[in-house]
Amino acid sequence: MEKDLVIGIDIGGQTTKCGIVDARGTVLSQTVIRSDSTEDVEEYISSLAETLYRLMADADAVERIRGIGVGVPNGNYYTGEVEDAVNLSWGRSGSIPFATMLEAHMNGIPVSLTNDANAAAMGEMTYGAARGMKNFIMITLGTGVGSGIVINGEVVYGHDGFAGELGHTCAVRHNGRPCNCGKSGCLETYASATGVARTAREWLEMTEEPSTLRSLDKITSKDVFEAAKEGDKLAIKIFEYTGRILGESFADFIEFSAPEAIVLFGGLARAKEFLVEPIQKAMDENVLPLWRGKVKLVFSQLKESDAAILGASALAWEL
Amino acid sequence: MEKDLVIGIDIGGQTTKCGIVDARGTVLSQTVIRSDSTEDVEEYISSLAETLYRLMADADAVERIRGIGVGVPNGNYYTGEVEDAVNLSWGRSGSIPFATMLEAHMNGIPVSLTNDANAAAMGEMTYGAARGMKNFIMITLGTGVGSGIVINGEVVYGHDGFAGELGHTCAVRHNGRPCNCGKSGCLETYASATGVARTAREWLEMTEEPSTLRSLDKITSKDVFEAAKEGDKLAIKIFEYTGRILGESFADFIEFSAPEAIVLFGGLARAKEFLVEPIQKAMDENVLPLWRGKVKLVFSQLKESDAAILGASALAWEL
Repeated sequence: MEKDLVIGIDIGGQTTKCGIVDARGTVLSQTVIRSDSTEDVEEYISSLAETLYRLMADADAVERIRGIGVGVPNGNYYTGEVEDAVNLSWGRSGSIPFATMLEAHMNGIPVSLTNDANAAAMGEMTYGAARGMKNFIMITLGTGVGSGIVINGEVVYGHDGFAGELGHTCAVRHNGRPCNCGKSGCLETYASATGVARTAREWLEMTEEPSTLRSLDKITSKDVFEAAKEGDKLAIKIFEYTGRILGESFADFIEFSAPEAIVLFGGLARAKEFLVEPIQKAMDENVLPLWRGKVKLVFSQLKESDAAILGASALAWEL
Repeated sequence: MEKDLVIGIDIGGQTTKCGIVDARGTVLSQTVIRSDSTEDVEEYISSLAETLYRLMADADAVERIRGIGVGVPNGNYYTGEVEDAVNLSWGRSGSIPFATMLEAHMNGIPVSLTNDANAAAMGEMTYGAARGMKNFIMITLGTGVGSGIVINGEVVYGHDGFAGELGHTCAVRHNGRPCNCGKSGCLETYASATGVARTAREWLEMTEEPSTLRSLDKITSKDVFEAAKEGDKLAIKIFEYTGRILGESFADFIEFSAPEAIVLFGGLARAKEFLVEPIQKAMDENVLPLWRGKVKLVFSQLKESDAAILGASALAWEL
């Protein structure tokens, strides 16, 4: 039977999303399991494999799977290993030969893996906003800031497989916010969902400016977005600040690889209406004249519920 | 006759160096002409072609040239054009179809061109310190700061052919020094030969610190280097500062492309003994833990008088 389908698996700290995908990017069927129910990677992979077999059987696809693509934090494309993934209950320390282990459970169906942001870039290039582009930078604005860099039509993995950590480039050199990575001033401490909430808390404390956000107990980036939509001036300013920080960083990224576009994806990218202008302005003010107004700023076109699976699945077509 | 030789041409603002190079990286013969004797590009190219024919005749190499590689400011690898090269008397505005024009004068010998820093990266990969490396970043520390980025064994040209302007990434975000490019705070305003001289002038004015540099009328980076070698403390501190700025920037570059090494070349790289430690320290302090102590910092191994020609010539082997 023709191998005309692939499986995409997106592993996050809490949940694992799996789906069967065809060449046009349709998710034929999908399901979710918990990622954090065990600290034993063998146990996790067994239950994952069981889930995949059930998914394939239900979709009548057992013989049609060409490969499995996995997007996983700290996934190394070169080695197929997951290395020191602090956010995964079963992956906290050392190297796990994840791809090899999953292949063994899947009757030899080949498995390829990379980190989630690189998978997102593959998805966008294969099915989304970056179709036809050979040079672009994917920025995922979620709890953190991830990135996938595509040059000459290929994801950049670098010498060791871990290239593209743009969320940890320096946005604020002195007295920057401490980051989970141990450094300070990293882009993701400002321009992630967490960063936006942090900016809100800081500004509420430091200024007297009236804002509907003052009535909230615990502020999330979603609250800031809702407030901005209601016209709350402080909330709008928070996005302007976030956008400026992003735009300044994007200018440096452009000077590195001269991409055709920067593609934004993730929860925070939903605040597009408040982010586009400040990003574009800061990008143009900080980039060399030759790129001013030339590099596109585009937002992901993938359905958010499918995007993670599609991104991971895109890896499998290369197998 | 076998085409076993190439020509390398390095075009700078004042001089143009040309040489005939064999596959082992030996410069068989070379010569220099002025770059700025005319504002007419036709005239410049005619005299360049004449020089090349003389060079080939003298080396008995007329039939043996496989191709010509040119390193030139604002040279676009994709189009073979030189675009808005403000430092070239005949190239100040608009696009010059340089490769096509030179080919026409050279009886159809193919011509490939790129900017000088990309050419340096090619040279280092073909004949120098980066032999065998597939992922590295070349940084040229001259009057300005140039860069050539190699990923998967190929120079990164980006969407438009101009990728790799790392000298214009932001080193100092607020109140940074104005740069010739129109922006401020660019890496090259601090970490170039000009930048080092500027730091010296600023520090001499702002502090009372004793220094042999105070007796000089006009300070160059070479003066600072000489003073540092004599043990002048201020001069040594100037290199420490320069090294820190470089190391901080290198940390961000590593987070982009995860190179095996950063290769330094150019006049300022001669101050290696004063730069290595501060660069390495700042690089390690500012990079993600996973790369700490892992990315090599190496200095060009090419003879300085040959390097520019070798770099440009390396392009021609690809033709």
